[in-house]
Amino acid sequence: MQKRPTIVIALGGNALVRDGRLDFASQLKSASRALKDIPQILPKWDVVITHGNGPQVGASLIRHHAAKTVTPYPLYACVAETQGSIGYLIETALEEHLQKIGLKHRPVTVITRALVDKGSLAKSPLKPIGHYYSKEELQSARKLRPAAEFRFFKGKGYRLLVPSPEPKEILEATLVRNIVGNNCIPIACGGGGIPVAEVRGRLTGMEAVIDKDLASGLLATAIGADTFVSLTDIEGAYINYESKKRTLLRNVSLEEIRRYYEMGEFAEGSMGPKVLACIRFLEKGGKRAVIAHLDKLKSAVAGKSGTQIANYLA
Amino acid sequence: MQKRPTIVIALGGNALVRDGRLDFASQLKSASRALKDIPQILPKWDVVITHGNGPQVGASLIRHHAAKTVTPYPLYACVAETQGSIGYLIETALEEHLQKIGLKHRPVTVITRALVDKGSLAKSPLKPIGHYYSKEELQSARKLRPAAEFRFFKGKGYRLLVPSPEPKEILEATLVRNIVGNNCIPIACGGGGIPVAEVRGRLTGMEAVIDKDLASGLLATAIGADTFVSLTDIEGAYINYESKKRTLLRNVSLEEIRRYYEMGEFAEGSMGPKVLACIRFLEKGGKRAVIAHLDKLKSAVAGKSGTQIANYLA
Repeated sequence: MQKRPTIVIALGGNALVRDGRLDFASQLKSASRALKDIPQILPKWDVVITHGNGPQVGASLIRHHAAKTVTPYPLYACVAETQGSIGYLIETALEEHLQKIGLKHRPVTVITRALVDKGSLAKSPLKPIGHYYSKEELQSARKLRPAAEFRFFKGKGYRLLVPSPEPKEILEATLVRNIVGNNCIPIACGGGGIPVAEVRGRLTGMEAVIDKDLASGLLATAIGADTFVSLTDIEGAYINYESKKRTLLRNVSLEEIRRYYEMGEFAEGSMGPKVLACIRFLEKGGKRAVIAHLDKLKSAVAGKSGTQIANYLA
Repeated sequence: MQKRPTIVIALGGNALVRDGRLDFASQLKSASRALKDIPQILPKWDVVITHGNGPQVGASLIRHHAAKTVTPYPLYACVAETQGSIGYLIETALEEHLQKIGLKHRPVTVITRALVDKGSLAKSPLKPIGHYYSKEELQSARKLRPAAEFRFFKGKGYRLLVPSPEPKEILEATLVRNIVGNNCIPIACGGGGIPVAEVRGRLTGMEAVIDKDLASGLLATAIGADTFVSLTDIEGAYINYESKKRTLLRNVSLEEIRRYYEMGEFAEGSMGPKVLACIRFLEKGGKRAVIAHLDKLKSAVAGKSGTQIANYLA
């Protein structure tokens, strides 16, 4: 059997919550839309799917804080929860597309941990997660998470801030590499992975979140993927995004986009980490990285939509 | 490399909640205790771990019902959540034991679905899950789950009843078979698996729960396991359990325990499904099935504790 190239496709957490509706049926519908092109990609590619969990882990925190009779889990265990439920949801939506045309591929969700350096947490950018608390809710939230930081957002309320450290290694990468292909479609790196750090020789969960794109790019490198695609809700990476001269980057080289990145063209916590994930993936030997719209996966893979970044040296 | 025999070890949901405490740290401690013998088993066996989720899925339901601003998930998605969080928890506890003695094995959690026959749900035994609702809570619980059945337990309150249909197939069994061994310890079939049925050609989640032992035995058969061990909080299977003449079965043949089973010696919803899972596993070619105490895994695997059931024909 000829070896097919591997593609890692990262779905934004919002891909499953397009209309802001977090109920399971609505998410299933959104997932179905985001995954509709996968069957057409499978004949040529071995596919790995990764995904964010921003809205879902926010909902998980709300549920854990709301219940009075059961102790809330730490954030990293909430991430693990969302990997289970979102993974199952993606499997369900994807299998329906596969069955329609008689494909026998099996999606399978692998709970995934991202190793971080504990020392890096204090220096990491802080990311607001979950919903806005009122002043009253804040008090009980503080009681539940005494070490946590909360920030006031004018007119909206208080929000939990957690560090988003650099992922150093995806601990389940070898397994994902071993199972991808042979009709298996791994779903991995949910929410960027469960953040763990070595503390006195033990892998210990961290109250942090991992950027999904950085983690997915790291996984793509570790499994020797050929192509990395990050799907989002805009057409691709723009330069001069905030001005009237905004221009979508269509075909760029690694060198070119690295220059734009260094000039600060891409917003932190939004397009920035996506571009950075692409740059790193290409620097480590990846052939092509793509940032494209959720609804255009097929044409993005065909090189016909989104921002196509090529590593001409790979 | 010599092929080692495979052993499937099923942990009761209560294995992780010994003292009734459902916070993550307490569960981690209990898991650590339940898994302490695994490193000593690894040199001779390829190990798969399965687990229940009774207390945890109950807590998940409480959280989903308590949150006012996010719609609760269906039960099967709550099962998926618990697979993520319990799987991660077992990985963490197990890896600590492995690292202590320098073993390089990697536990990995696979989200697992159990296929059921939709038609069988109406005829399935009903299982109470989650906590007891007051009359007031019952009203809102009914609103959230209009199709659900609730039963009143005297002096305690109302409890959600859901069908517990027979698992027909573990959909991820092939993957588990492919990855077990080679230093990989799959954690699968959490809570018996996410119940799915084919409805108009689609795999659809069901508001049901799957018996963890029946699912684990089915998985053991599907992956060609040699031995199936169900760990629980008593010493093994007893006959005359309710009388003064209660006798622990130590070494029995398949034929013998089948006779006791048919005589109704084992309580439904408790020892019954454990024994039935063992019988089925042996009937389908398994060599040995064991029901033993959580704290005695090592001696159970060595044949020195618990109820040891042999298939002398296998």
